[in-house]
Amino acid sequence: MATVISPVADICFSAKRAAKALARVDTETKNAALEEIAVALGERAEEILEANALDMQAGREANLGDALLDRLLLDEARIAQIARAVRQIVALGDPVGEVIDGHRLPNGLDVRKVRVPLGVVAVVYEARPNVTIDAAALCLKSGNAIVLRGSSSALHSNEALARIASEAAVAGGLPQGCVSLVAGGGREELAELATQKGAVDLIIPRGGEGLKAALEEVATVPVIYAASGNCHVYVDASADEETAERIVLNAKMQRPGVCNAAETLLVHKDIAAEFVPRIVQALLDAGVEVRGDEHTQTLAEESRGRIEAATEEDWGTEYLAMTLAVKVVSSVEEAIAHIGRYGSGHSEAIVTRETTSARAFQLGVDAACVYVNASTRFTDGGEFGMGAEIGNSTQKLHVRGPIGLRELCTFKYLVEGDGHVRA
Amino acid sequence: MATVISPVADICFSAKRAAKALARVDTETKNAALEEIAVALGERAEEILEANALDMQAGREANLGDALLDRLLLDEARIAQIARAVRQIVALGDPVGEVIDGHRLPNGLDVRKVRVPLGVVAVVYEARPNVTIDAAALCLKSGNAIVLRGSSSALHSNEALARIASEAAVAGGLPQGCVSLVAGGGREELAELATQKGAVDLIIPRGGEGLKAALEEVATVPVIYAASGNCHVYVDASADEETAERIVLNAKMQRPGVCNAAETLLVHKDIAAEFVPRIVQALLDAGVEVRGDEHTQTLAEESRGRIEAATEEDWGTEYLAMTLAVKVVSSVEEAIAHIGRYGSGHSEAIVTRETTSARAFQLGVDAACVYVNASTRFTDGGEFGMGAEIGNSTQKLHVRGPIGLRELCTFKYLVEGDGHVRA
Repeated sequence: MATVISPVADICFSAKRAAKALARVDTETKNAALEEIAVALGERAEEILEANALDMQAGREANLGDALLDRLLLDEARIAQIARAVRQIVALGDPVGEVIDGHRLPNGLDVRKVRVPLGVVAVVYEARPNVTIDAAALCLKSGNAIVLRGSSSALHSNEALARIASEAAVAGGLPQGCVSLVAGGGREELAELATQKGAVDLIIPRGGEGLKAALEEVATVPVIYAASGNCHVYVDASADEETAERIVLNAKMQRPGVCNAAETLLVHKDIAAEFVPRIVQALLDAGVEVRGDEHTQTLAEESRGRIEAATEEDWGTEYLAMTLAVKVVSSVEEAIAHIGRYGSGHSEAIVTRETTSARAFQLGVDAACVYVNASTRFTDGGEFGMGAEIGNSTQKLHVRGPIGLRELCTFKYLVEGDGHVRA
Repeated sequence: MATVISPVADICFSAKRAAKALARVDTETKNAALEEIAVALGERAEEILEANALDMQAGREANLGDALLDRLLLDEARIAQIARAVRQIVALGDPVGEVIDGHRLPNGLDVRKVRVPLGVVAVVYEARPNVTIDAAALCLKSGNAIVLRGSSSALHSNEALARIASEAAVAGGLPQGCVSLVAGGGREELAELATQKGAVDLIIPRGGEGLKAALEEVATVPVIYAASGNCHVYVDASADEETAERIVLNAKMQRPGVCNAAETLLVHKDIAAEFVPRIVQALLDAGVEVRGDEHTQTLAEESRGRIEAATEEDWGTEYLAMTLAVKVVSSVEEAIAHIGRYGSGHSEAIVTRETTSARAFQLGVDAACVYVNASTRFTDGGEFGMGAEIGNSTQKLHVRGPIGLRELCTFKYLVEGDGHVRA
């Protein structure tokens, strides 16, 4: 595929041309093309596995850790899972053409606000090769051309997947250039991609703080950071302790390595004497390292023994691991203030039985998702009924929380008259 | 007012603190505070006029042109008009708290997507002092703190208006720091304002390409460009000629100096022999300078005499004046392609009697507002029923077209459960 070896600007120019055609392709054609991709993934599994073997070998030679190697690995089952994910996107409604709003103006003009594709979406991602297909399927379904830029450690796998997706999409009736991959994994390619104004309409980085910082420096195209989350659970004075324990354990442990996992537990002082020993015990029993403020340490020591002190740094840290910081606060307002200071605006939860506390928390916490008596782990496009997501936004413009098909679109106003002129 | 003389970072920090409180202020209080501002503008008109006199004197000494001096000038009538505009914003619905979407998930969790303020909005604007109050009223009504940065030529007027607005807002119950003005009109202050990450949630420049370019270089906070418009009217082969003439004249002349005025006329070749001489005559009679492509020049010459040639540069120029470029195209697709190449994504119109042409134009033109048989001049928050606007966005992320109260907001998901945890 020429698209894989062309320079970044050429790739983006071709993507832009493809996007213009793609914006007008109907849902049936897009779905048929996605089905072609799903079929091709199965039929050409051997080609994918051969490419992946090269990445795995290079990874072993470069002494990548077991976790990274596992993220890199593809097998028949994982390829089948990638194809299933494509078919799930086929089953979703098409956001393009949805009328978001509409009315007749006093002068008789009819105005409709209609969802349309953004154009060219660039997705920058790290190790997992499955993102190549997930992101491509979401972008194609929402009528966008996609330019992918994965990590160099997965280059052979990503090239094979992008090639198969591109060929199958074109065979299925989508325009040439609708899926392409920037081959180089270096910072130069990233900077080039992030400055293709007039060609790239949006760049979505999926990765850690390093990637975010690198983009912030150079990007001139619009960026939505699918960023990390420093999430809190606040246990109010009135909380049911059993509910609180269940939610804290779920938010921390159900999958500790993801952005909607809890990193800090805040406990109201009036319930702390009972709840802190209980939850510390439960966390330690479950293998979670607990770091407490002074009050928490005292309460824990009385019941269970010394726990580590939480420092200023802990409050701002996204552990993405089996570690939880714990702090006792004197009011829901103090909890809100702590979250306002250290939170990343991702997902925040209160456990309470009092409506006043619930309402104060909902109004006062400035985050994408604010939970009352539920785990932070629900922040997810699939869980929210969007079907799939390309990441979670912690910014305020355009989209907060899960970035699904609708969020990959913009809108335009269609205005119809009978020769209307402005007086 | 300390806010006027503090350094930029201090102002933004105070605004951030104010924004947190302001987000929770109810509509009645916000409306009462806006009414206080309207009253204060009347009561303190003398103070405003004295400040304005200083700017006018400096402007005359600096040999500002008559047009600029007129834009700078305030008098009793203009101040009364500014106060009326504030009361019009009082009459608008409050966007904060609107439930945009909501549903119950299969697991029983209730999800609401609720509109909330962005936080701190910075508005950078040129000469007209009335923007100081218009922008402040829109931001306060939508629950945002505002940091204003006007041009140095209007500094005394802007300071007086911002001081009055700030004092009246606080007297009306809004938090200290909700309205402030950056005193320096230099590029350093602009750069400082545009890099206040963590304090400024959005910066909206209202001004020309120079301001846009200056911001693109330095901004690290999110920007919405309330940018210029290179708008087109396309007259299809099937157009009713009288309708077409009326729309072209209105789009070009009703107010030539604004962003939704037409700058280029495209005419289908099958109607060109009749329509081009007619519209060129009408435009010239009305005092519009016409620049044509070769075909247009030939047709005009036969009927009326030589007109100037349109060059490549003309197609990309926003004249903002009584000048119109004219080009004959061979199809609606060629018109769409021309607009795709030279348009700025603002407002584009087709005049046609054929549904296929109308539909092709609506689908193919990628712009904020696409008109069928109506003038481009309707792109306006007031005309669209939003009541007021802070500008028109030509970007695709977050908002396209008029930036009204809703567009000055973001949203958050409120999720309520009964101890729900993720399986």
